[in-house]
Order: sequence, then C-alpha cells, then structure tokens
Amino acid sequence: MLPAPRFTAFNPPRRILMGPGPSDVYPEVLAAQSRPTVGHLDPLFVGMMDELKSLIQYAFQTKNEMTMAVSAPGSAGMETCFVNLVEPGEKVIVCRNGVFGERMRQNVERMGAIAVLVDNEWGTPVDPAAVEAALKANPDAKFLAFVHAETSTGALSDAKTLCALAKQYGCLSIVDAVTSLGGVELRVDEWGIDAIYSGSQKCLSCVPGLSPVSFSPAAVEKLKNRKTPVQSWFLDQSLVMAYWTSAGGKRSYHHTAPVNALYALHESLRLLAEEGLENAWQRHHEMHLVLRAGLEKLGLNFVVAEDYRLPQLNTVYIPEGVDDAAVRTRLLKDYNLEIGAGLGALAGKAWRIGLMGFGARRENVALCLKALEEVLN
Amino acid sequence: MLPAPRFTAFNPPRRILMGPGPSDVYPEVLAAQSRPTVGHLDPLFVGMMDELKSLIQYAFQTKNEMTMAVSAPGSAGMETCFVNLVEPGEKVIVCRNGVFGERMRQNVERMGAIAVLVDNEWGTPVDPAAVEAALKANPDAKFLAFVHAETSTGALSDAKTLCALAKQYGCLSIVDAVTSLGGVELRVDEWGIDAIYSGSQKCLSCVPGLSPVSFSPAAVEKLKNRKTPVQSWFLDQSLVMAYWTSAGGKRSYHHTAPVNALYALHESLRLLAEEGLENAWQRHHEMHLVLRAGLEKLGLNFVVAEDYRLPQLNTVYIPEGVDDAAVRTRLLKDYNLEIGAGLGALAGKAWRIGLMGFGARRENVALCLKALEEVLN
Repeated sequence: MLPAPRFTAFNPPRRILMGPGPSDVYPEVLAAQSRPTVGHLDPLFVGMMDELKSLIQYAFQTKNEMTMAVSAPGSAGMETCFVNLVEPGEKVIVCRNGVFGERMRQNVERMGAIAVLVDNEWGTPVDPAAVEAALKANPDAKFLAFVHAETSTGALSDAKTLCALAKQYGCLSIVDAVTSLGGVELRVDEWGIDAIYSGSQKCLSCVPGLSPVSFSPAAVEKLKNRKTPVQSWFLDQSLVMAYWTSAGGKRSYHHTAPVNALYALHESLRLLAEEGLENAWQRHHEMHLVLRAGLEKLGLNFVVAEDYRLPQLNTVYIPEGVDDAAVRTRLLKDYNLEIGAGLGALAGKAWRIGLMGFGARRENVALCLKALEEVLN
Repeated sequence: MLPAPRFTAFNPPRRILMGPGPSDVYPEVLAAQSRPTVGHLDPLFVGMMDELKSLIQYAFQTKNEMTMAVSAPGSAGMETCFVNLVEPGEKVIVCRNGVFGERMRQNVERMGAIAVLVDNEWGTPVDPAAVEAALKANPDAKFLAFVHAETSTGALSDAKTLCALAKQYGCLSIVDAVTSLGGVELRVDEWGIDAIYSGSQKCLSCVPGLSPVSFSPAAVEKLKNRKTPVQSWFLDQSLVMAYWTSAGGKRSYHHTAPVNALYALHESLRLLAEEGLENAWQRHHEMHLVLRAGLEKLGLNFVVAEDYRLPQLNTVYIPEGVDDAAVRTRLLKDYNLEIGAGLGALAGKAWRIGLMGFGARRENVALCLKALEEVLN
C-alpha cells in the first residue's frame, strides 16, 4: 500500500475578494450550500430545481423554456452553447477583444467548425460596424458569437445592437454573459439573444462551479434539426433538459446533479430577485463611481474608456515603476484583500478590481482604496 | 421587466441517503465546504490543491503525476478520459454490462471513434474470456474500456485481470471507478490502469459535482502524441494540468476552479486517509454482510451472485406484487430514507441499496432493514 498522507483540515482565511472572480460569496449562500445533501431525484429537490429555473429566467430576463444551470463552470457553459448549436463545417463569426473571445475561437475550431474573426483592440468593445462588414462578407455564416462583458479587459459591448445585426443577417447570436449577469443591464428576450451562458462566481456572488445557460426558441429549433449528434454526451442539452423539465411528471436521470452547489445558486438568485435586478445594476454603477473617484485620486488610469467601462470590473494601469506582484502580495498578506492580475495582453500591465454582487459595497470600496493608498505610497 | 419570482430559502430535510449516490455526506465535509471562498490562484488555495492531489493519488493508489479532480461530475470524468486519449477513427473495445458501459459507447461514438462492444448480461461482471476474444479479433484496437463497479446493477468486474489483458494485447485501459473508489479494493499502479475516473458523491461521501481522474505515464505519452487537438477545450487535460501543477512555481489560469467543492473533496479524502483505505474497504464489506443477512431474512433476493457482488451497492429484486414507487415513497416520507430505483433494464424490477462511505454504518443498516420490514409487511 502507498502510505496515507496526513494533512490537517483546510481553514482558509476570510479574504475580501475584489478580483475578476470568484467574488465575495453571500454568507446566506455559504449557509445554503452546507445544508444536508438530498437525492438528485428527491421530489423536494426537483421542486427546488423548478424554482431555480424560474430564478435563472428572471436573472436573464427571458421566458426561454430551455433554461438551466450547467453542472460545471462558465467555460463549460461556453462549450455547451457551441457544441449544441454549431455543427462541424458551419461558420461562426467570432468577435475577439480579449481572452474570452479567443477562447470562443478555440471552441469553434476544436469542434471542426469555421471561425471568422472580428478583432478589436483589447480594452475596446466589439465594433458593430466591423461585425456588420463580416456578416455581409460571409452570407453563409450561421452564428455571431461575442462576449458581453470582457473579464480580461473590463470592456462592455453593445449586446442589443450586435444581436439585432445577427438577426438582420440571419444568424443566431451566442453571448458570453459570465461577468455581465447581475451587474449590468442584460435583457435576453428583448435583445433577441439566442444562446447565452454565465457563471455563478461573478455578480451572482455564488460559489464557483456552475453556469446558467438559456436558449431561445430559434436556438432550440436549430438544435432539434441537427444532422449530427452533439459531440459531448455530458453537455448534450437535449438529454440534460429531460432532467430539468418535469413535464409529464417524470424527470429522467442524466448525471448526478451537483446538489449542494445548486442550493447555493438558488439562494444567490433568490437574493438577487429580492433586491431586484434593476436595483442590483444601479448598485454596481454607484459603487463603481465611488471607486473610480478614489482610484483617480490615487493617480491610477483606467484601461477602458468611460463610455463602455464595466462597473463590476475596473481595469487600471499599474503605475510606472511599481512592482505588480509585490503590491498584490502585500494586499493579500496584510489586508486579506485580493485584486486581480492582468490577463493575456494585459499581464503585468494592469490590475483588475472587481465590484461584483455582494462585493459591490461601500466597505469594500473604502478598504480597497485605503489599502492601495497605503501600499502604493 | 419580467417580474421577480418570490421564493423562500430552500430548507431540505435531513435524509438518510442509501441509494446509488449521492451518498450521505460527512458533516465535516459540509462544514469544510461552507468555509469562506478564496481566489483560485490564492497561494493558500493552491497549497491545498497540492495536498488534494496527493490525497487523490493515495485513494487511487497511484504515483501518476497527471492526477487531479475534473471540475464537473463523474460523467464529465468519463468524457475527459475518452476525449483526451482517443482520437477520431481509433478503435476502443467497450465492455457493456449495464448503463455505464453503454454510456462509454456513446462517448466513443459521439467523438468519431469506433466502439467494439463486448456485451455481458446485466448483473454479471465483464467476462475476461470474451474480452480476450475481442482483443484477439481486433489487433488494431488501441483501448479497452470497462466499468469496475457497475452502479446500475451492483456487479464488480475483475479490473486487475482485465487491465493485464489490455496490456498483453497492447491496449491502454480506461476504467470507470465512480462507485468503486473507496468502497472496494482498487490499485491503479499495481493493476496497471492507464486512465481512471471516479465521482465525489459515492464512497468518498463528498458532495456531488467533482470527478477525480488519473492518467498513467503511458496514457500521458499517448496524449502528448495526439495528431488532432482534444475536441473539448474545457476538458483538455494538457491545459488543465498547467493549473494543477506548481512546477516552476507558476500556475496557469485555465478555468475558475470550484473552490468550495474542492474544500469538500479535500476534507472527504483526508477523512479517508485518516481511516485508511484498507479499513474503509473492510468496513464496507462488513456492513454489507449485516445488510445482506437482514435482506435475506426479509425474503429479498440479490440480482448479483455473491462472488462479484458490490458491498456498497446492493441490488435486490422487488418482490412479486409489491408497488415499487409506493414503497420508495413511504420510505422517503415516513422515514426520510432514500433507496434507489432500478435503472435501465432493471427499472421497476429492482431496488438499489447503497452503503457508501459515511453511509456504511450500523445505524443506517439497522434503520433500512427495520423500515423495509415495516413497509413491506
């Protein structure tokens, strides 16, 4: 026998999470998650899942029947949208203005579909004119895919305009709302979004590991008319929906649901519904204004122009001569405060300060500003 | 705006989970899971991940470097093994003696590989002679895939013999250990298993949602020599390992880890290491003997012959004239006791009584036997 390792229980400190996610989790969500595990086909549990579905619909502002939480993180939500809708050989216009647009390209190409790239500079939003040019130049494109809120830069794209363009040119839209959901305006039905995915660990302030997704009737139609099977058994939404729908009174087992994580998501979305979506959007905006004023006072410059700056993800340039890692380490060690490093093209050049969900509070903003002031001076 | 639904917090009852999983979760695991969320790149968190990796290695009895937990349930663990190792057009011998062997076939075929089926009757183990015949008849086969402990029937297959056969005929072995890990003898290195996956929610008594996996050096070699990219970005183990390895001191972000669920897995494996694997196997065996004696006294007959019966999953025929659903509903409503329904070919014909991990205790066995006695009489 290989010997048994001996470790003590892991006791993490109470960090204040102001990076790009995971965000500070509501205490109520942590409590909900630790309630006793029940079976994934327990009638009480499937009742909770019905509530959860309508809570996800509310957060997305959609009546889409095919709405659920993928039992895996946002990256799996992204993959769920692509592998269910796109078939090998089909053309997808992929907008790339940060890390997550690039990840979309990888998804599209790995599954044997064709990605037509629309590139925009990091820190800027997706340009609708460039998208329209690509749609015109590619009349055989079937999808337009873009990131609503780029977590790697903090730029917000105009999802409403982009989805209208997709519709105009006969494309289905696939939208990454990992960082936007709950933090800025997002209206799936009104804007005509066809497939959308998000993550539990950003503005929902739930534990990381789940990805709410939703598909419009047009997307469902596309899914139903596939000529090839979905390449992933685990992510095949036609199979998963048989578990998420109690139509006919019977749910079919697909995989064992992450029961406790779903308790947590239910609670976080319940808190969001209690606050009201518009109030949550407003709160993120107000906290951003306070943070912005303070950061500017410290002489820090934003990467993203004000017009399309995300309130929940503030990317600022690291001042000349300042040691990136040393500052973040001091914030973590001395203040238990986590802010995010730059990602991709912004690695070593910027910090990402998150104000997400439960994290978007005055006490967090104040702490962050004071700690930065002390560490930078 | 679509109106906000109003729900109260979900307060599940304290069930006693004696179905096929999720199993009763250790109270310590629920407590660990509700500790404060920290960042997925927090140095304290990645330290915990190093411990977690060595705990998974211990549970699997392996020194495999490529050992980790997939951030999704066991079904995703299955898919991880297939999509990373198998390339389109390659031949896999798939043993099918229950639901999960059939799921393996679906995985293989959806990814464009070829499944050669070896069928054995439900409730019996995989027959090594039939496997050897298939290996002889298919010299171009590159993989042998089978389920160690079939959760749908309760039959245990001889993984040691099957993996030796795979090696003899130049195949890599892919083994489903979702229900076996922690409940019965399993020795990855000694038996020469090349790729293995399990689930958190069976004999580990952790919350559902994670899948420990491990790849032998030969499997890693195959992965490295792929001619095509892994079809799934999310499950691409070469990318994921850059996050699970701190070699060089730097971890690369792949996806946001399910932080709190990993706390839970760390704690459940820590408890297993504390008890000792062999003691845990012995406990499952002893509890099975007590349960078996009681079930036989009640006149219930096992589906699986004694020689290859899983101690942790006891499948018994539903007596003639007894209403399957009514009995399970009464057990749940009156006793808060969950036992499992039959699955696939055994639906409506059998019950599955789990004795998994923390659930394999005298008090659970006693309750189950008394409750069944009262409900059946």
